[in-house]
Amino acid sequence: MTITSTPSDQTRAVLLREHEIAVQQAPVPQPGPNQVLVEVAAVGICGSDVHYFEHGRIADFVVREPLVLGHEGSGTVRAVGEAVTDRTVGQRVAMEPQETCGRCTQCLAGRYNLCPDVVFFATPPVDGAFAQYVVLDSIRAHPVPDSLSDEAAALIEPLSVAVWAARKAAIEPGDRVLVTGAGPVGLLCADVARARGATWVGVSDTNDHRLEVALQRGANAAVNAMAGPLVEQVDPVDVILECSGATPAVQAAFAVAAPAARIVMVGMGASDMSLPVATIQVRELVVTGVFRYANCYPAAIALAASGAVDLDSLVTGRFGIEQVTEALTASRSDPNSLKPVVYPGVDRR
Amino acid sequence: MTITSTPSDQTRAVLLREHEIAVQQAPVPQPGPNQVLVEVAAVGICGSDVHYFEHGRIADFVVREPLVLGHEGSGTVRAVGEAVTDRTVGQRVAMEPQETCGRCTQCLAGRYNLCPDVVFFATPPVDGAFAQYVVLDSIRAHPVPDSLSDEAAALIEPLSVAVWAARKAAIEPGDRVLVTGAGPVGLLCADVARARGATWVGVSDTNDHRLEVALQRGANAAVNAMAGPLVEQVDPVDVILECSGATPAVQAAFAVAAPAARIVMVGMGASDMSLPVATIQVRELVVTGVFRYANCYPAAIALAASGAVDLDSLVTGRFGIEQVTEALTASRSDPNSLKPVVYPGVDRR
Amino acid sequence: MTITSTPSDQTRAVLLREHEIAVQQAPVPQPGPNQVLVEVAAVGICGSDVHYFEHGRIADFVVREPLVLGHEGSGTVRAVGEAVTDRTVGQRVAMEPQETCGRCTQCLAGRYNLCPDVVFFATPPVDGAFAQYVVLDSIRAHPVPDSLSDEAAALIEPLSVAVWAARKAAIEPGDRVLVTGAGPVGLLCADVARARGATWVGVSDTNDHRLEVALQRGANAAVNAMAGPLVEQVDPVDVILECSGATPAVQAAFAVAAPAARIVMVGMGASDMSLPVATIQVRELVVTGVFRYANCYPAAIALAASGAVDLDSLVTGRFGIEQVTEALTASRSDPNSLKPVVYPGVDRR
Amino acid sequence: MTITSTPSDQTRAVLLREHEIAVQQAPVPQPGPNQVLVEVAAVGICGSDVHYFEHGRIADFVVREPLVLGHEGSGTVRAVGEAVTDRTVGQRVAMEPQETCGRCTQCLAGRYNLCPDVVFFATPPVDGAFAQYVVLDSIRAHPVPDSLSDEAAALIEPLSVAVWAARKAAIEPGDRVLVTGAGPVGLLCADVARARGATWVGVSDTNDHRLEVALQRGANAAVNAMAGPLVEQVDPVDVILECSGATPAVQAAFAVAAPAARIVMVGMGASDMSLPVATIQVRELVVTGVFRYANCYPAAIALAASGAVDLDSLVTGRFGIEQVTEALTASRSDPNSLKPVVYPGVDRR
Repeated sequence: MTITSTPSDQTRAVLLREHEIAVQQAPVPQPGPNQVLVEVAAVGICGSDVHYFEHGRIADFVVREPLVLGHEGSGTVRAVGEAVTDRTVGQRVAMEPQETCGRCTQCLAGRYNLCPDVVFFATPPVDGAFAQYVVLDSIRAHPVPDSLSDEAAALIEPLSVAVWAARKAAIEPGDRVLVTGAGPVGLLCADVARARGATWVGVSDTNDHRLEVALQRGANAAVNAMAGPLVEQVDPVDVILECSGATPAVQAAFAVAAPAARIVMVGMGASDMSLPVATIQVRELVVTGVFRYANCYPAAIALAASGAVDLDSLVTGRFGIEQVTEALTASRSDPNSLKPVVYPGVDRR
Repeated sequence: MTITSTPSDQTRAVLLREHEIAVQQAPVPQPGPNQVLVEVAAVGICGSDVHYFEHGRIADFVVREPLVLGHEGSGTVRAVGEAVTDRTVGQRVAMEPQETCGRCTQCLAGRYNLCPDVVFFATPPVDGAFAQYVVLDSIRAHPVPDSLSDEAAALIEPLSVAVWAARKAAIEPGDRVLVTGAGPVGLLCADVARARGATWVGVSDTNDHRLEVALQRGANAAVNAMAGPLVEQVDPVDVILECSGATPAVQAAFAVAAPAARIVMVGMGASDMSLPVATIQVRELVVTGVFRYANCYPAAIALAASGAVDLDSLVTGRFGIEQVTEALTASRSDPNSLKPVVYPGVDRR
Repeated sequence: MTITSTPSDQTRAVLLREHEIAVQQAPVPQPGPNQVLVEVAAVGICGSDVHYFEHGRIADFVVREPLVLGHEGSGTVRAVGEAVTDRTVGQRVAMEPQETCGRCTQCLAGRYNLCPDVVFFATPPVDGAFAQYVVLDSIRAHPVPDSLSDEAAALIEPLSVAVWAARKAAIEPGDRVLVTGAGPVGLLCADVARARGATWVGVSDTNDHRLEVALQRGANAAVNAMAGPLVEQVDPVDVILECSGATPAVQAAFAVAAPAARIVMVGMGASDMSLPVATIQVRELVVTGVFRYANCYPAAIALAASGAVDLDSLVTGRFGIEQVTEALTASRSDPNSLKPVVYPGVDRR
Repeated sequence: MTITSTPSDQTRAVLLREHEIAVQQAPVPQPGPNQVLVEVAAVGICGSDVHYFEHGRIADFVVREPLVLGHEGSGTVRAVGEAVTDRTVGQRVAMEPQETCGRCTQCLAGRYNLCPDVVFFATPPVDGAFAQYVVLDSIRAHPVPDSLSDEAAALIEPLSVAVWAARKAAIEPGDRVLVTGAGPVGLLCADVARARGATWVGVSDTNDHRLEVALQRGANAAVNAMAGPLVEQVDPVDVILECSGATPAVQAAFAVAAPAARIVMVGMGASDMSLPVATIQVRELVVTGVFRYANCYPAAIALAASGAVDLDSLVTGRFGIEQVTEALTASRSDPNSLKPVVYPGVDRR
């Protein structure tokens, strides 16, 4: 293991139980043979972080032990494990926050995101990135060019979700695409649809501010779902990227699906929803969902580096390690909040 | 138009209103330039025929004028239109019961079954095949080898549904396949899955007789859905061909879907169903439906001709043109009835 | 047929034999039931036009009768056939210069460009568009927005070739793409690759001017194939769009194909070439070719209308109907000529 | 590591240099943490084994150190490494003779056969299976049912090549398939094509005995390529599986490719071949090659276990560990030899 001068202790923010974050000192972890040690630069706040903070659980994942949240992270490699030959100390990286077995049917088939033994940051009992240092497998520490800011490198994570969703939908020139839900992932889905050459990209939401942001980012149309039935506001589309998770939005979206349209369920919502099966049949719609992503980081980095997708403009708040609670509650105090970012190495108070 | 001696009048069975069939004389139609005149040999009874007979409608398709039912037909070409060069008088054919515009986006893309101007046999106001003679586009009259019986040639129609469903699911060696619902289409779906090399084909139903038939046809397993939760009876599968249309069967099926499984909704049932969206997401399932079929007749004919799929054994009743009512009600009198066949040229009383 | 005041006669340029063009008067054609009459605005010169002009043939297609060249055309609908409901007089259109049978296996499968009965503009004995008026099937007259110039509408044709090639290659974000050959189609292939989100687009040629144009249009790299082995100048790529038709370029390109790369042969060259079969095998490359295009005009129009692809800047010469010979020989007099355009309604002498 | 009583020494056959095999004693290897120790039951002779025996090399792979040949092997697990939980002592297995890194771009994408760090049995400097005991990663030791003989379990290896080739070609009902070359892999390709429901499967070769075997196995037609141009003997086909590696066979095959046909180069032959590029273009053929296989063993085992593919009947000779030289030269003495099998645990002299 090549290690440069790194401190033995670090500061990290830990979720003790719902609504209670503690800032603690903890040892700096040592990278295993195939791992790298990353000094964390920036970490985006995801809705799942907020959900753990507020409810102490997501579905069957329950916070039973203190948990470090945060899985949208960037940083700089500070040490590499003894078997690592593909990363070097000093490289700036975006961190793909999952490790998978590489041996199961899913991994061997190239669907490593479906690995039953996947380990994912900030999912109990696995710690995340609200910390000054983390370790991860070297192949998950993706180098980024200097032109990408720390925040942009962190937001490669949600961009990868959008890349994956658009890949599942096989969006290409000629396609009309509707994105339902204009949160950060929905906005990025619209961006990626446009970057793949979609002929028309519309975004629907019930929040006018977010719709305005969608237009600013280049959407061809922004539709307030409260203004009337979606089917009266939008002509049929070839692709729907459902990013709201809201049952009424999902149901409304099916009505505007053209024959043979592809529908990708991105936003998590109710476990069960009433769906128009007869419509799926007579129009031969293809409906699928996404669970994180696989093999998307390089493409996402390239889209951000080329300027095709602007990540910096998503950032609506900046917080130090002592302010993780404020970061996690930013959307409560500011309805226009999109993406708060935590800087674990900085005390911004 | 080359025409051999065909009579000027014919007999046909007409649905006047629900539960009322009349046997009438009518003129023998003349083929248009691209059409052929077919003397009908055999016509299978489909559940949709029964539904029109019992309810006078299916969804928005209402029988307002007398309607000839029957769309699973075979016969012999007796005359060809003036522009027809690809069919000859005397050829035995399986009739693909649809005509499409050939000019719309769907037709040009190879999805002619989704043509908005599709004309389909036995769908108001278009007459079907319970008649001694019908005309159809020459390209829809698919030649069959002499080794295929009239009944088998007629049942190329439901076999095409199965071919289409299995194609949508991209079944191949290595796949474990579950067919839910062991009616004629379900049984044929199991046959086609096996003919594509599926590693394991299971069939579920609530009717033990049908399950027994499934096993006789070569299914690897037959599961009575009443015997306990499906998930306890079946290991995860890569493909589900849902042929029951029954909401509980659909919902139970999702529970046995392996990661990345493909689910094809074949059976028509409730317009809306509560589906496990979270499961679709975390397992990245791909759900689609089929609406009739496109470009399937040649493959279906080949599967029947090679012996890979046995169609004759599906026939459970034989009826003359005067017995269409008996044919349409056969399943009421015999719960083991699978596929009644009408012979329009025969008076079997 | 709705017809507005159109003259009964028109001017057109006819290839009598190699190197001999005559400008003639001819009747304005009448649209058939499904056709439209288009007053031609602009027609791009394609390499195939030049080849017919210089050699009187392309492969087995021999000019035996006087032939109107030109197949990259735009114009305005001046009359519509009696069955036409989807186009109106006055619409500006890009003309897809092919008619297909709509009934063969290829057409029914959505591959109408492979229809054995395809009729294509400017391919003996079918006349093309160097004329003031032409008729074509209404579904091949694709409306364009007013924001597209006449020239851009004409150049939707070569852009469709690029759209088709990129679709065959399934280019998407994350892909590194090499285009070999920087003629008009190669430049457009590079544009479309970028419009689909390709991570890196390189262009190779032996003409520095064309390479400079490629860079101006946004290519990430331009490589002069004379400067050294391609494999030393380019890192492995996921997609190769071969647009030169030159055997050495084809062979050099295979050397830079990454494992599982897709190679699309776009440029026509020698009938037979020595290809590295062992490389195709050990890298599992996928090699295919394109023959014109199918279902590409709407996507191409959208790409041009959105600004993703700039067509106007390809135009390097403008000629009237009396100057077709000059247009066809423009590349001889100016090695930097890319795309001469003929305006059949204009006498520019 | 759970280990049952295994001897410390074993017998193996080693290629010292071309034409020289030595039978030696060697230590029984110890399985690593993720490996299993397999007592080898049967090993098929592959053309590559013969090639190493006769030439001491294949392309850039040169036998510089003594090398154990044999990569088509079956056996029984006799010990498992300490981390192995998915295999147990006593299981009969087919051995997939490759290990891959699981971390590179190719592995992560599900194309592990293209892993640049792949280690493959019997490829210098990696030893193969002409030995009483071998170790391999537990995930490459695929359990087989008792109904499969040792020979059949060994021949899962060449069957996997056929499964992979047919998967690349996406063969399905409706497809007409031509296999060129009726050696063991060609025969298996024909079997798999039929098992996937191909409508018609033809086999070409120049050896009448092999053609007779193809017919016995169920091919629809057998064509002697010496009897006349292939294009005069075979109607157009949708898929070509090229298993001869012979340049004239490859070239002849293209002539019978239908529009949009898929051509998979399976047999290794000349590094470069003159191919009809114009035909690839005007028919939009898709040409690819296979390099070993990925994720095919389970499907191959299922095809063999179901009886869809009969492997036992391929065996034309049985040899003990002392007879490896005879096994490697069997095809010289008997032109009808198809698949000699070596039993490392048996002395058959």
